[in-house]
Amino acid sequence: MNFHIRAATKQDCKDVVRMIMELALFEKMSDQVKISREELERDGFCQNPAFGCLIAEVPEENKSKEGLTTVGYALYFSTYSTWKGRSMDLEDLYVMPEFRGFGIGKSLLSAVAKVTKEEACARLQLGVLDWNTPSRDFYAARGAQDLTVSEGWHLIRFDGANLDNLANDASKI
Amino acid sequence: MNFHIRAATKQDCKDVVRMIMELALFEKMSDQVKISREELERDGFCQNPAFGCLIAEVPEENKSKEGLTTVGYALYFSTYSTWKGRSMDLEDLYVMPEFRGFGIGKSLLSAVAKVTKEEACARLQLGVLDWNTPSRDFYAARGAQDLTVSEGWHLIRFDGANLDNLANDASKI
Repeated sequence: MNFHIRAATKQDCKDVVRMIMELALFEKMSDQVKISREELERDGFCQNPAFGCLIAEVPEENKSKEGLTTVGYALYFSTYSTWKGRSMDLEDLYVMPEFRGFGIGKSLLSAVAKVTKEEACARLQLGVLDWNTPSRDFYAARGAQDLTVSEGWHLIRFDGANLDNLANDASKI
Repeated sequence: MNFHIRAATKQDCKDVVRMIMELALFEKMSDQVKISREELERDGFCQNPAFGCLIAEVPEENKSKEGLTTVGYALYFSTYSTWKGRSMDLEDLYVMPEFRGFGIGKSLLSAVAKVTKEEACARLQLGVLDWNTPSRDFYAARGAQDLTVSEGWHLIRFDGANLDNLANDASKI
């Protein structure tokens, strides 16, 4: 299967939103998706973009049964480690089911790793769900460490009313 | 105990590096700390800073036994969620042991939550170690969700040779 990895443009946001939803459905959390195409366009394609995005594209002759040629994406952004300095987070890596097994996911991951090195980031981090064995195996086979297993890191979140309450407490100080 | 929360300046980096090391020692991972004062100054106090930092300061009459008045910090940066849009990560929250129990940590956390809301971020996330019960309880008491427990998220990392190998694969495509 021929495919091509390239930087996303504003025009890709429609396809990226479609694939964000496909990935969330696979992760059984599609009810959490609130993003819109307009927000992605605004946040990723401006003066100081909040993220970078790579697209996997197949030629017209290999299009999906729905007629789609944009078949995968990787979305990432730079973060900071107080131990190592500049770092990179891979928010999403996705390939449409009928295009798996051709090395597209590996190429997207490698391309993000290349950006990570080019931007002088010491590491590339991502989150994966416990039951998502194919993904966990995919990353482990390429040498990734599972820090939740090896060091015991937990992901903690404030949002909604909890975040509002915390922020309101600050106003009272 | 009187204390004051304020934005860090470049001149605070010496104290921040000291406290980064104190926190890493507590987390039993001080061998992982490679950051320098110069890197923090360069990355955090430039045109497009990689992070924001708040400082907790006590008046001279409450200084530590070593004569220090900068007794805590919170370091954070903006990230991106493909489900919710702009998000915030709290990389570190630390208060020196002899200054705990006076509400300094809670004030730092609230101040970061306020910044999170001001920057129109939908959520504030952080990592905490499995065995660090006081911190886990501190966040849980304020309504945070432990997503590693409730949803099964694992933190995965590429660095060193693994990251280099991935990036080199991209060059061959």
